[in-house]
Amino acid sequence: MSLGSSAVPVSAPGLTPASSGAAAAAPGPQISHHRLDNGMEVVVIPDHRAPVVTHMVWYRNGSADDPLGKSGIAHFLEHLMFKGTRNHPQGAFSEIVAELGGQENAFTSNDYTAYYQRVPKEHLRVMMGFEADRMTNLVLTDEIVAPERDVVLEERRMRTDGDPGSQLSEAVHAALYTHHPYGKPIIGWQHEIESLSREDALAYYERFYTPENAILIVAGDVEAQEVLALARETYGAIPARGEAPQRRRPREPGPRAHRIVTLADGKVEQPTHQRVYLVPSYRTGAPGEAEALEIAAHLIGGGPTSLLYRKLVMEERVAVSAGAYYYGTALDDSAFYTWTVPAPGVTLEQLDAKVEALIAGMGRAPVAGEDLARAKMRLVADAVYAQDNQSSLARWYGAALTTGETVEAVRTWADRIDAASGADVQAAMAKWLTRKRCVTGYLTPEDAQDDAQAES
Amino acid sequence: MSLGSSAVPVSAPGLTPASSGAAAAAPGPQISHHRLDNGMEVVVIPDHRAPVVTHMVWYRNGSADDPLGKSGIAHFLEHLMFKGTRNHPQGAFSEIVAELGGQENAFTSNDYTAYYQRVPKEHLRVMMGFEADRMTNLVLTDEIVAPERDVVLEERRMRTDGDPGSQLSEAVHAALYTHHPYGKPIIGWQHEIESLSREDALAYYERFYTPENAILIVAGDVEAQEVLALARETYGAIPARGEAPQRRRPREPGPRAHRIVTLADGKVEQPTHQRVYLVPSYRTGAPGEAEALEIAAHLIGGGPTSLLYRKLVMEERVAVSAGAYYYGTALDDSAFYTWTVPAPGVTLEQLDAKVEALIAGMGRAPVAGEDLARAKMRLVADAVYAQDNQSSLARWYGAALTTGETVEAVRTWADRIDAASGADVQAAMAKWLTRKRCVTGYLTPEDAQDDAQAES
Repeated sequence: MSLGSSAVPVSAPGLTPASSGAAAAAPGPQISHHRLDNGMEVVVIPDHRAPVVTHMVWYRNGSADDPLGKSGIAHFLEHLMFKGTRNHPQGAFSEIVAELGGQENAFTSNDYTAYYQRVPKEHLRVMMGFEADRMTNLVLTDEIVAPERDVVLEERRMRTDGDPGSQLSEAVHAALYTHHPYGKPIIGWQHEIESLSREDALAYYERFYTPENAILIVAGDVEAQEVLALARETYGAIPARGEAPQRRRPREPGPRAHRIVTLADGKVEQPTHQRVYLVPSYRTGAPGEAEALEIAAHLIGGGPTSLLYRKLVMEERVAVSAGAYYYGTALDDSAFYTWTVPAPGVTLEQLDAKVEALIAGMGRAPVAGEDLARAKMRLVADAVYAQDNQSSLARWYGAALTTGETVEAVRTWADRIDAASGADVQAAMAKWLTRKRCVTGYLTPEDAQDDAQAES
Repeated sequence: MSLGSSAVPVSAPGLTPASSGAAAAAPGPQISHHRLDNGMEVVVIPDHRAPVVTHMVWYRNGSADDPLGKSGIAHFLEHLMFKGTRNHPQGAFSEIVAELGGQENAFTSNDYTAYYQRVPKEHLRVMMGFEADRMTNLVLTDEIVAPERDVVLEERRMRTDGDPGSQLSEAVHAALYTHHPYGKPIIGWQHEIESLSREDALAYYERFYTPENAILIVAGDVEAQEVLALARETYGAIPARGEAPQRRRPREPGPRAHRIVTLADGKVEQPTHQRVYLVPSYRTGAPGEAEALEIAAHLIGGGPTSLLYRKLVMEERVAVSAGAYYYGTALDDSAFYTWTVPAPGVTLEQLDAKVEALIAGMGRAPVAGEDLARAKMRLVADAVYAQDNQSSLARWYGAALTTGETVEAVRTWADRIDAASGADVQAAMAKWLTRKRCVTGYLTPEDAQDDAQAES
């Protein structure tokens, strides 16, 4: 039986979430976008190179929509969606996918939860039938819920409690988002996972697993009319609920104080330094601002020609690794990451001062024309390349549509990147990448200052 | 017109909230504790030295009960409670208190909201009549609510936005409480105050301003039976709602990473250093634990004989001031504070390392018998002295009863302090005052590292 695995994005330096802002450079495939009578959206992305389809259903709810005190419920329900329904016993769906030689998975992020299968195209209708079935017919008993909760708790123990880097990431995000729920871990806080009940899961399921809240994305060797006809037969049979569920999230106040979070643990073999800045997302930024931050991330830490790598790793040799990443695909204000790994003998505090000076300098100096052109070319080339992967492309549209963007915005992304001027990029860095907006994270081996007292 | 002022406790180093754990050393006055038929509690504290009474009504709701996205509503409603009712025009209540030569005030804390008047004893019934009236008959129109919201916003601007120390305190608390609502400022986040509406205020008022949620405390030249008779005539006429409102708060996860919050601002004239530890309260601690922390605060930073003062101010001369405080009167896990002000030429980082070493040392070494005896004697003596003040005593009972303690617990507080052993105090310091559980706060003048970019 295949359990849904949870994508925990934006956590560790170096991790590149699939929901990057990169997207299709026009002219791309002829993407169609429809809505069924019950409110469910349907996006079809034709790709005729192989006789397969990627079938995904995305829900506009993620961990940031977990009710207060119920952190982890979005991810827990993702697990429970692999249990039986009124029509199919537990495991039947996964068995059929396996028998057909297909793949399946599921993931929970801050802003969305999604399920997908990749199968030979003639089995698309079967996938739709099963997926539509579990949108409304899930059966949850205490006998099902309790052991699965233990599975999730074990997952948390393995991923977080055994990994100082994950613990630091949790603490850094909690410090960055003092009020907004992006500060909660996607998998949930342990003591709250422990209290998640069958009733909690059912209430959450009934609130969010509705056609009005779902987006069907099919990429592959199919045509829009064919997909729409199948969707009407399967998903279209689910009654509308009347309106889409509301997401109610508080807004993060503007940060005023620089914060440093230090995690010291004997299991740490390689100290690391990170900086995380609170910045706008594609949805919350002014026009062009997210695009400028995307370019800024590339200039600051996108590969061996980037500022941090060139200065810290190659010239000064104070770091052995350095990078930056902008997580722009988010419903609310999001984060800009930099990370460095010190060379032997260099302290994290020394690295932090150097990173601060380099980034502050970027906000004061004009962006060189050749650097800007190279960054844009690389970003767009990456997008074109990624577009070549059927499921990557499907994931970009899913992530965009569940975070308040449109099909058109994704299609024109490359044009907007191209339109950004050096002054735009400099202004974005000067405005957003300031010391007050950022949390510095230090991951170090146990040090003398740290006591080994038992913690409750 | 007298506006309610808001007590914002536990914010600034050096501020001693009125809701200290100190209390009546037995034998104290004969305190009676009753409940009216509608659920309202009545506590009477006789004090016949002068012909006056302190009349207080406490509600079991504070800023930590503000609904998500509505921070500041508890405090805002405290302001609005000074507006008119169906029976009395705006200002009538305050005018009568003034005419009688009395005093009045109100305050909002994390866990409670309270209103009080101090008047000649013969006017107690009039106070009860007005206070009972505004428990149910408040009239709120947009014409009343909108200008008062501007008053609160101006209050926030004056207290917080103009004061770097308050800004640091907000950021430190937001870092300490990453999940629990004690991390929100009592006055609220500005952008959420701006959105508080008449409907929000009325919904909050109807939820919490009920007899089941209220505690009447009368201290002064009165007897219990007399107060009870008047309470039945006034408050007793308010219909019961059926049950007390629930407080729903998430629990803070155990901290794992040390955090440093730095606020640099040109308006800072005196740098300060603080450390705030997440620790149990009287309500959440194991038996004796809060009492041990109370003694620990005295040993670490309670006056000129305390560890921090003696070592840092007198011996090493690296600080010009130092102290500690335990905020034990809280419904949920609370905070233990230390603060120091550096001598000229000493950096905050240097002070922090010294404070860390001193406190860690306290957890490893036995408490000297004479130090323990002196700390206990001083704490109990302070309590006996404070008990001499009618309204202080009334406030202790109000704060205790609204944070889950009992009249009996307050009465036996001195005995429990006396019962704490040196081993108890050492164990509490070793367990709770660890680096991982704490947030370090630095308040500094604008420094070279800090940029002066405009922040959104």
